[in-house]
Parts: sequence; structure tokens; C-alpha cells
Amino acid sequence: MVDSIKRVAVLGSTGSIGRQTLDVIRALPQRFQVVGLAAGKNLELLAEQVQEFKPEFIGCPPENDDIDKLRGLVDIKSDLLPLDEVAAHPDADIAVIATSGKAGLRPTLAALRAGKNIALANKESLVSAGEIITGEAKKSGARILPVDSEHSAIWQCLNGENQEAARIILTASGGPFRRLSPEQLKEVTVAQALQHPSWKMGKKVTVDSATLMNKGLEVIEAHWLFHMPYDRIDVLIHPQSIIHSMVEFIDGSIKAQLSYPDMRLPIQYALSYPERFINPQLPRIDWSLVRSLDFEPPDYDKFPCLRLAIEAGRWGGTYPAALCAADEVAVELFLDGRILFTDIASSIERTLEQHQSISKPGLEEIEAADNWARETLLKTISGVK
Amino acid sequence: MVDSIKRVAVLGSTGSIGRQTLDVIRALPQRFQVVGLAAGKNLELLAEQVQEFKPEFIGCPPENDDIDKLRGLVDIKSDLLPLDEVAAHPDADIAVIATSGKAGLRPTLAALRAGKNIALANKESLVSAGEIITGEAKKSGARILPVDSEHSAIWQCLNGENQEAARIILTASGGPFRRLSPEQLKEVTVAQALQHPSWKMGKKVTVDSATLMNKGLEVIEAHWLFHMPYDRIDVLIHPQSIIHSMVEFIDGSIKAQLSYPDMRLPIQYALSYPERFINPQLPRIDWSLVRSLDFEPPDYDKFPCLRLAIEAGRWGGTYPAALCAADEVAVELFLDGRILFTDIASSIERTLEQHQSISKPGLEEIEAADNWARETLLKTISGVK
Repeated sequence: MVDSIKRVAVLGSTGSIGRQTLDVIRALPQRFQVVGLAAGKNLELLAEQVQEFKPEFIGCPPENDDIDKLRGLVDIKSDLLPLDEVAAHPDADIAVIATSGKAGLRPTLAALRAGKNIALANKESLVSAGEIITGEAKKSGARILPVDSEHSAIWQCLNGENQEAARIILTASGGPFRRLSPEQLKEVTVAQALQHPSWKMGKKVTVDSATLMNKGLEVIEAHWLFHMPYDRIDVLIHPQSIIHSMVEFIDGSIKAQLSYPDMRLPIQYALSYPERFINPQLPRIDWSLVRSLDFEPPDYDKFPCLRLAIEAGRWGGTYPAALCAADEVAVELFLDGRILFTDIASSIERTLEQHQSISKPGLEEIEAADNWARETLLKTISGVK
Repeated sequence: MVDSIKRVAVLGSTGSIGRQTLDVIRALPQRFQVVGLAAGKNLELLAEQVQEFKPEFIGCPPENDDIDKLRGLVDIKSDLLPLDEVAAHPDADIAVIATSGKAGLRPTLAALRAGKNIALANKESLVSAGEIITGEAKKSGARILPVDSEHSAIWQCLNGENQEAARIILTASGGPFRRLSPEQLKEVTVAQALQHPSWKMGKKVTVDSATLMNKGLEVIEAHWLFHMPYDRIDVLIHPQSIIHSMVEFIDGSIKAQLSYPDMRLPIQYALSYPERFINPQLPRIDWSLVRSLDFEPPDYDKFPCLRLAIEAGRWGGTYPAALCAADEVAVELFLDGRILFTDIASSIERTLEQHQSISKPGLEEIEAADNWARETLLKTISGVK
């Protein structure tokens, strides 16, 4: 059995996806072993995780102020590694990239350059730098295994098919505000935006789900992960979040992947692929309880973030990087109570309108676009307020 | 391109599945070519088909009274072959077995013994003689490719998976009488029973769909086609007939196959596998029109045929053959207006109660059980009336 244990490095182990990754590994000790842990936030929890999993190597951004506190909480014999060294570490079979925001980009590239398969939960890096990332994967032969439930669903549906998909149908819960009027959307509070109807997730992605920005970012991800032109990616609202996405083939046959909304399943599949493992902790659909799966087209006028993201994806260049960065700042401002829910979309739109995109950007140009968008969005807001 | 044309022999070419098979071949002349046609009924239509497709060989049961009429309608140069020679003909790459009832069994076995892949639309042979058929396929290495929409769905969902299914969820439209009371079921007319809400099919299978016997037979088929124990095959009512079946894997992930109810898709997939082909005549789901997919558990009390079939499958031996034969006679009697809709189930049940099953039956024992059940059901009926 020892040979079949997969050695996993988890980046962003204290976040929502990181913790659920450790839940999966905890449930399947004969299958997976934590060899590396890294986090930049919540170092108390990182200390606990180190104590429990005893990884061979540990990472923390060197600029983190709490490193001494971490060393005080748990006995760490070796040096703390920077995140990209954790991602590319030769002792891991797979790196789970669950760091949030732009912190995921360089570790992702480091792992791929080292030829290491990655389970990618970080949306922003693929959205901002999809061409660079998929190019590195192609060069080294490393695989990018999706962790998002939607992309995992698409990946599972494509499994074993000889031909590419004719169309991807990306499902979306529609968030908690599907039924609100444009006027009501202005009144949405932070507490309301953090109540997702079907998924438990981090704050940023929960707000992104409420604006449908999250689905827009996923369209861009799907474009890169599955080499799919934007006009063959549809978004479909499916409030129950049981069908996680669908693939239509050239003969019109559609395959869908279904499960209760629980991130541990796509995480486990990314780790176990091409096998599947029994995990008693994963829920199974009880069809005596699921009486209906509903669908409706998305409302691009009421949820302009979805439109903005797809447009940015189509325009390409540094637009997606600017979109991502602008969204990160706008969501922070909303969470801080400084802008309205509906200002998220309008401030991003005003930022993108001013963006001078560079085509085929390198990493530096992507990071410059990111910085530019953050500053520009803040200026846009202060001009309004 | 010539090399990639698949040469197809169609048995039962004048029936519903046979005609739709020819529709598919007609739509894709660069992909498929009809090399053999055979039918035992509607020989006028067979004559037209021969005229259109100019097959190399033609089959008709030698005992058919209309053979001379057929020769009068179309110029047939060679001998008419018996059905098993059509099925096993060396000039065909694949044989579509779309003959109805027990006429499909011997051609199926002949094709498999000759190592020929078959697209199997004939339910009764797999239900009655599943062990013999799957044994022959295993011996020769020939493949049994399902044509039923449900089994095609399961097959498509299993595609590319390394491990067997944890569970098969066979969907059923539930037929036209889901909402009737037991009293109302007694009053069902032949015309009502022939109105299927979602599928256009032959008379026998339409009535079988209304009693849910069809779904029970499909459970037995799934057992044999996918080597699946009966306690891991569930039936789920899904009135829209858009999800054609689902497979649950050991990690709890479920895959489903979806399309509008149109038999040409599973027929085409059986012919094109492992490829898929664009066929502009096949409908594509319009998700702006599909607003809801509904589910409910089947009512085994109201539709005892479903229970009877699954029981016969579990008991094994010659029970499934007796079930099939009894059902064929009972449905005929109902179509002739001689018994009530609800008598179909009760007469089959009384027949099975008297059956002396033989375990691991050979072909002769299966045919004897078939004959016994036909006679016994008739006696049961005449005893009642």
C-alpha cells in the first residue's frame, strides 16, 4: 500500500479549500499523506495543522509578520520555505494551490515548471494569466487538475471521450439575490451577501457568487482549462447546485455531473484521479429528497459582473487581470461597508473602461495591470463618494 | 474516407428501431453503409428499403408467407438468408438487432459467436438468456452495445471510468398513468395505453412502458450488460425523459446523460462508438425551454409489473424467460381487448407463481419456459373469464 500513497503539498492550508483538503486527507490516510503545508494567514491554525500532519516542509511568505509567533506555537526544525518552493517541492506528488487572490500565481507557475501536477483551486491565477499557465503546463507536461466543482464536473464528463466538447454548460446557483429587483439589489447588506443558499465558502468567493462575478471568472477558467472558445460556453442558473456543470457533445448528447454541494468531492477527485475512492464522509444524493432540478437563463442586466467578466475574457490581453484585481478591491470595499453591493459592478466597469490592455502579456505586464486596476478602482470610488 | 465507413446489417429493419436506424444511416452516408437488411413483418416496407439501400444481403424468416410477394415487389438476385446468417454475416462490421420478441435471441447468439459486435435493441433476448448471451460475448470478445436510451446513457456515463459503478439509477418516464388511482387503472383503454407522454415507440413497448414492465425488463438488462447486482440498481421516475439514466460512483459522484427523447441518438452512438458524429437531424436541448427536471420514487404497488420483473431477475433461472413470454401474451390480450390493463400484471403474477424454474438454463430450457409461460398465461386468463 505504501507505494500508492499520494504525497500532497497544500498551499493555503488554512483557508476554506485548504481545510477541506485536509479533511479529505484525514479521511483517507491509506491514500494520501500531507508532506507540505503553507499558509500566509491564520498561522495559529497552520501551527495546529503542522502538529497534526507533521509535514516534511512548511511554507510561509517570508514577509509575514507572524512567522515568529508561528515558531513559538509549534516546533519547526527546518527553514520556512517561500510558497513557490512548497509548490514545486520534489517530495510532493501533487500540489494543491488553494491560496487566494494573486498570491497563487507564482507558486502555480513554479509547480508547473517543475513538471508537477497541480490541483488548482485558485481562480485568479488562471483568469489573469491563463495563457502563460496553460503554456507552462504544455511545455512541462504537468497537468492542471481543476478543484472548482464546475470545472471538476466538466472534467469528469469529458473523461473517456475521444472528441472535444461541442459546448460547455456552466451551472450557477444564481446566488441569494436572483429574485431581487434592481432597486432591492442596492440595499443588499454585507450579512445578506455572505449567506449563500447552497455553498459554504470563503467571504470573497461568497460575494463573487452573489454578484455572479464568480461565474464569469469560471467562464474564463473553463476557456483556458478546456481550450473552449467563449461562444461555446453557456451559463445556466440552477438554484439547487446539484448539477455542477454539463458538457454537450457533437452528437447532441449531454453529460452532467451531480452531487450535493460539498467541495470535498471535487477536491478528492483532483487528488484521486484517475481513480475514485470510497470516503464515508462524502454525502450521497438521496433521490427521495431531490424532487426537482430547476433551470433558468442568467439575467445579465441585473448581474452585470457576469457580462463584464465574459467580455474581459473575450477581449483577452490584460483585461482579465484588471478585472480580477478590480473585483478583489471592490469586494473588499463592499465588505468594509464603503460601497453598495451594486457599486461592485459599476466600479469594475468604470475601471475596465479606462484600461489600456496589452496583448500577449508577460508576468510583469499582468502584475502591472493588476496594480493599475487596484489603484484605478480606488480612485473611481473616491471620485464618487 | 472509404475505410472509415462502417458496414451495418439491420435486423428488424421495418420496425420502429429499424426504421430509425435507417434514418441515422441515411443522414450520415459518409459514415455508415447498409450492407444487410432483414425483416419478418411489413415486407412491402422491406422491399422499399431494399430498393433504397441496395444491401448486399437480405434476410427473411424462411417460414414467412409473404416471401413471394417480396420477390414480386423488388428484384432480389440472391437467396434470402435466415436471420442468424444476416446477423453473423462476414461482410458487416456491426449487426443491429432490432427484431422484437424472442425472434431476436438466435440471431444475437449467432452474431456474438461469430465475434461480431452487435447493437442490441432487443430486450427480450437479454432478459431471457442474459447469462448465455453475455457468456458468448465474453468467449468471442464481441461487444454488446446497448441501443435502449437508458442503457446507452449508463454506458456513456461509464465511459473512461477506471472503476465499476457503485449504483445505477435507471430513470423511467413513469408512463401516462402515474397519477391514476388503482380503480382508474382498471378502466384504462387500449388507446390511452398507446399514448406515451414522451417517447414514440412500437405498441408492445408502449404498453410495457405504461405498466412499468418495460422498466423492470430494463433493470434485468442493466444487470447483465453492466454486471451489476440487483440491489445496486435503482429505478427513479423522471417524467420529462431528459435524463436517460445515471451512474453513481464509489466517491458519491453521479454522472447523468441527457438529451431530448429521440431514439436516433442512442442508435447513432451504438453505431459510431467510440466516436461521436455531428448529425444535424438530432435535436439539441434548448435550456431556455427546459425549466425543470422532476423526480419521484416509483410506486411498486400501483405498478406491480415493475416489482414482478425485478423479482424474476433476482430469482434468475428461467423466471425472466417466463416473465417475458407471459408479458408478451398478456399485452397482446390487452391490445385485443380481451383483458383489462390491470389484468396484465395479475395474469403474469399468477403465471410466475406456478413456474418451476430451472437454474443455469440452456437455450432449449429457456425456450421451453417461454412456451410454458405462454400457454399457462392463456389458461390463467380463460380460467378467469
